[in-house]
Amino acid sequence: MIGVFEHPWLQGLFGDAEAAAIWAPDQQLQHMLAFEAAFTRALGQAGRIPQVQADSVALQIAAFKPELASLRRGTAQDGLPVPALVAQLVQATGAKTAVHQGATSQDVIDTALALTLRNFNSLLEVRLAAVAGGLDQLAAKFGPRMIMGRTRMQAALPVTVADRLVAWSQPLAGHRDRLQGLRPKVELLQLGGAVGNTAALAPQAQTISADMAKRLGLGNPPRAWHAMRENLVEYAGLLALISGSLGKMGQDICLMAQQGVDEIAMSGGGSSSAMAHKQNPVLAELLVTLARFNATQIAGMQHSMIHEQERSGAAWGLEWMILPQMAQAVARSLSAANEICTSITRIGA
Amino acid sequence: MIGVFEHPWLQGLFGDAEAAAIWAPDQQLQHMLAFEAAFTRALGQAGRIPQVQADSVALQIAAFKPELASLRRGTAQDGLPVPALVAQLVQATGAKTAVHQGATSQDVIDTALALTLRNFNSLLEVRLAAVAGGLDQLAAKFGPRMIMGRTRMQAALPVTVADRLVAWSQPLAGHRDRLQGLRPKVELLQLGGAVGNTAALAPQAQTISADMAKRLGLGNPPRAWHAMRENLVEYAGLLALISGSLGKMGQDICLMAQQGVDEIAMSGGGSSSAMAHKQNPVLAELLVTLARFNATQIAGMQHSMIHEQERSGAAWGLEWMILPQMAQAVARSLSAANEICTSITRIGA
Amino acid sequence: MIGVFEHPWLQGLFGDAEAAAIWAPDQQLQHMLAFEAAFTRALGQAGRIPQVQADSVALQIAAFKPELASLRRGTAQDGLPVPALVAQLVQATGAKTAVHQGATSQDVIDTALALTLRNFNSLLEVRLAAVAGGLDQLAAKFGPRMIMGRTRMQAALPVTVADRLVAWSQPLAGHRDRLQGLRPKVELLQLGGAVGNTAALAPQAQTISADMAKRLGLGNPPRAWHAMRENLVEYAGLLALISGSLGKMGQDICLMAQQGVDEIAMSGGGSSSAMAHKQNPVLAELLVTLARFNATQIAGMQHSMIHEQERSGAAWGLEWMILPQMAQAVARSLSAANEICTSITRIGA
Amino acid sequence: MIGVFEHPWLQGLFGDAEAAAIWAPDQQLQHMLAFEAAFTRALGQAGRIPQVQADSVALQIAAFKPELASLRRGTAQDGLPVPALVAQLVQATGAKTAVHQGATSQDVIDTALALTLRNFNSLLEVRLAAVAGGLDQLAAKFGPRMIMGRTRMQAALPVTVADRLVAWSQPLAGHRDRLQGLRPKVELLQLGGAVGNTAALAPQAQTISADMAKRLGLGNPPRAWHAMRENLVEYAGLLALISGSLGKMGQDICLMAQQGVDEIAMSGGGSSSAMAHKQNPVLAELLVTLARFNATQIAGMQHSMIHEQERSGAAWGLEWMILPQMAQAVARSLSAANEICTSITRIGA
Repeated sequence: MIGVFEHPWLQGLFGDAEAAAIWAPDQQLQHMLAFEAAFTRALGQAGRIPQVQADSVALQIAAFKPELASLRRGTAQDGLPVPALVAQLVQATGAKTAVHQGATSQDVIDTALALTLRNFNSLLEVRLAAVAGGLDQLAAKFGPRMIMGRTRMQAALPVTVADRLVAWSQPLAGHRDRLQGLRPKVELLQLGGAVGNTAALAPQAQTISADMAKRLGLGNPPRAWHAMRENLVEYAGLLALISGSLGKMGQDICLMAQQGVDEIAMSGGGSSSAMAHKQNPVLAELLVTLARFNATQIAGMQHSMIHEQERSGAAWGLEWMILPQMAQAVARSLSAANEICTSITRIGA
Repeated sequence: MIGVFEHPWLQGLFGDAEAAAIWAPDQQLQHMLAFEAAFTRALGQAGRIPQVQADSVALQIAAFKPELASLRRGTAQDGLPVPALVAQLVQATGAKTAVHQGATSQDVIDTALALTLRNFNSLLEVRLAAVAGGLDQLAAKFGPRMIMGRTRMQAALPVTVADRLVAWSQPLAGHRDRLQGLRPKVELLQLGGAVGNTAALAPQAQTISADMAKRLGLGNPPRAWHAMRENLVEYAGLLALISGSLGKMGQDICLMAQQGVDEIAMSGGGSSSAMAHKQNPVLAELLVTLARFNATQIAGMQHSMIHEQERSGAAWGLEWMILPQMAQAVARSLSAANEICTSITRIGA
Repeated sequence: MIGVFEHPWLQGLFGDAEAAAIWAPDQQLQHMLAFEAAFTRALGQAGRIPQVQADSVALQIAAFKPELASLRRGTAQDGLPVPALVAQLVQATGAKTAVHQGATSQDVIDTALALTLRNFNSLLEVRLAAVAGGLDQLAAKFGPRMIMGRTRMQAALPVTVADRLVAWSQPLAGHRDRLQGLRPKVELLQLGGAVGNTAALAPQAQTISADMAKRLGLGNPPRAWHAMRENLVEYAGLLALISGSLGKMGQDICLMAQQGVDEIAMSGGGSSSAMAHKQNPVLAELLVTLARFNATQIAGMQHSMIHEQERSGAAWGLEWMILPQMAQAVARSLSAANEICTSITRIGA
Repeated sequence: MIGVFEHPWLQGLFGDAEAAAIWAPDQQLQHMLAFEAAFTRALGQAGRIPQVQADSVALQIAAFKPELASLRRGTAQDGLPVPALVAQLVQATGAKTAVHQGATSQDVIDTALALTLRNFNSLLEVRLAAVAGGLDQLAAKFGPRMIMGRTRMQAALPVTVADRLVAWSQPLAGHRDRLQGLRPKVELLQLGGAVGNTAALAPQAQTISADMAKRLGLGNPPRAWHAMRENLVEYAGLLALISGSLGKMGQDICLMAQQGVDEIAMSGGGSSSAMAHKQNPVLAELLVTLARFNATQIAGMQHSMIHEQERSGAAWGLEWMILPQMAQAVARSLSAANEICTSITRIGA
């Protein structure tokens, strides 16, 4: 448990329970089973297996409790958990031809990711609205007051508190629009089969994918996106943009909270083990930390675009290492920003 | 001349003449003068200075030839060239109140950038269309042939050449859409004055900015974006996405060109100083290099979002160091991809 | 549990049990208590508290079982767990003046990190030697065979297998030297007090730190390094260098394992959910993934050097997010490289 | 001329004339010719060509003025300038067997880089000493004064100015040691021939390389480092460490120069185009910018470690794009830090 998002005590600062629940392994597993169940049903719908069998096997899949140790061993062996999962499902259902036949591991994992993103995006929407609302309230309370405008870290000319706040809130409105635009580009079924061209599902491939997408509540892209990760990387970019905008807000608050500047007051600042009198702007600092974390990570996501041929193990693994962390970081940025908004007791003199 | 884009011989590989012309300092200077001229005209239009004076001074500004050594000294002193430029303009026109009064350095530099981006985006559009067209031609010629599909760098099952090509071309269509969506978000006037709130231009600030935007052919945002860089960083993200998609194409070609794989033939490969028989896939390698370069740089752009208060010198300077290079890199990616398309003489057996 | 190093099934691929044990929270806690116990003993040794009390309180500290929920709440409040831990220790020992008085949170956390690094570095030494040994054995078995040397991904001229292997093994020897040189620079006591100058411990500060360093088996630097992180960042750089060298080895193996190249054979490759005939070079791909992960992360560590004044919360938190992951990644790189060495059954024809 | 280091006016801020001269293309060309001349002489010394011919051809090479347009065309064609350069040399000398026979392009370019680094490292040594000296003088002048120590951007307890300064100067001493240790690891001859094993020079390869290294004033490594870039990446890491330490100094100065904090006064601050009263800490901001620039770039250097097989075009090109810029950035960091030291007129009250 070295990761700060799950660490026994560091999660107190970095962790976000709602986001963690959405990205939790048991959810990922449910999403993988949802893929397999929908796939089996779609095979029935398309007439590739008997409908009755499809319904029955799909129910078994949906209710299945995979053995985790086997998935772990399978991942060690195969680089991903799907062959082991499918083996378990085949054994449990006794229906080899009705399970996963014509799909590939990446179909399962990427579709599971899409389902996670759908849930996560709904959380993001709520959070973005909450922070925007919090900033609006601050503007309503303190907007007309004057503070010193500062450029290049030097006192320039007075501005209103509203002037300062708009640079925090306006970008959030843009991020909400971006998210709306991106949801249909990442909440997408993945179904390509072994080499991405759905050859093993011909000629019913489009029937199957349309049926699955409908069942799963995902979009049905014209083609599998195994090796075309640009939408996902664009999405990661949005996560970094959101935490970046909040990082600017955090940096400003740290500067405003300095003794000698004294432009802001907050309740509940952190205490020091050495100096009882101190009130540290812990959450504002956190916004800066998370912004710089995501700014760092986006480079890795960009590198992960370079998939070799029909599927890359190396590039895909890099995505696995980075994207969930970026999501946790942005979720925590938003919850911390919201806490900050409600803890501010004064801006301006 | 250490930069590869302008280096006496490395520019042969990395340089792009059209992009270089768009980003050239003399163009930047023309854009800065265009800002100042439009601003002066708008002051007249708004009745802040006599219309006749505005027209006359604007003409002088537009025709002015700044002294570069003075701009260099001014940049060393002030961190940017605008105070020195304005001083030259005031001296040349003798019209202090008609020049730059109520604007700030960042207004000039950011608007000049927006004008550069407008020209550059038109180039990107043409280039994206050209590469997409080139790939379509390859698909028309070689699409039905079979090659071995490879996943995790291992032979999997045969695919058509068209299957391989679609992973190169489909993302480009998306990038063209992204660019259309982003143009209005970055081809924007900047006008905020000293601390970004146009206070010195009240109550005619919106009149002035609307007039300027129209004259300059830029959008007129509701508010100055001095410290809100998210649109620009999103734009940099698109540049990295484009070079990333082309990097995947380049990586594939390098792999296809290997002896023992032999899935592609190109005319005009690079020779070796030690082995006359070799044909190196130089341009395909270049696509990988440029993709990894931009993947690296985007992190710096994300960090540059953290502006302090009304304007950051430090974060802004980071943007100056990185964004023009990302633009050159993506322009060269596109021209190299186009050259590759026309040089391919065979895909598949 | 989104982190791949601890994820229920992904840890099968990414996880490393020995490294995880060294970086485990309970170990961190033991190290923090070890700091506090050594500090209390040193206060006694220096005559700031009675020796008898020092010994007794130190024993209590060393045996103390902190309440984790309180540490989590404390971290949420204060940005770090130390104030909550100290409060627990004071309550448990009833000896406020004998616990932590004159130290600061960063002293505790950084010293605990130094103790973790000491253990981790010993693991790295063993692992580096093991991989070097494995490569030597491969050279002994297959070294004289000829394979095609490839430059710019094109067949060039034949080389021996030994020629190929030396580019994998020689850098490891350098990394072992680097590690030897770096150990004394990061296995260092941190003791600076509230603002880093040990003012609260004067005039016995050097006596206390020398005593503590000896007890803890760490170096005693001339001055606290609260805001001087260059040694730690250099160390992170070494982690990235190690995984980078192994990434080159992994990339080569992926290329050598291609059908049509066939320069290497390994037992135990990963299977595919769609294609039973495939043997994927999963661990070689993993080396590439981990190299690119650490290459990404090192940028964040470099940014974390920019501490404000006597201590930065924001920059320090970035270090917490990144360094443990880099360590896990490099540990897994080394264990995977070792597995690869033992699984190779043939290099060359 | 989009690069800030050479840009007509931005070079006023970012440029460094001494560093630019060391990295200038004409110097690179001289170093490449120096390689070829030394190689030809060594061929004579080793008896592979007549000594008289070797001396004569070497003199011609050393005095040769290459045609740049041809190098540019050659680079476009071959991905590097060496084949074109060698062709010119062969034509000029009429001595095909005495020119470059048995060497490869990478030998020339990497050795030329090593010669550049030797000169640049001498500059770094002088600069590091100068900044250390400047900080010592500040400590002598202002060291005993008290300022407020600040942790987490909050007032904590008073410290001396010397306490603040030591966090700026102590790391520089470490960097000087690092540089001493690294010089012999990067100021190295490269001589490997076509596939890096000097096969074409056998059995005199070691004689030739020893002779060349001596003539060129470089170290003679046991083996060519075509695809082992760890020393170079470690070196790039040092560049980032140096600019990182100076970035912390710059950040501190920006914070100290704030109105309300007022802990530092400098002569010659930058002026604003909108506010004549402002004095911007331009050079301190620049230190932050350059630190974040190099922190970004080091990730790219780390990615460039992943060379394929005996030589990578793609990874090597990434190094060309990044390393010279990191060097320019650190050189400017050091000169700016030095200017800052001499411009500080007061620290503390």
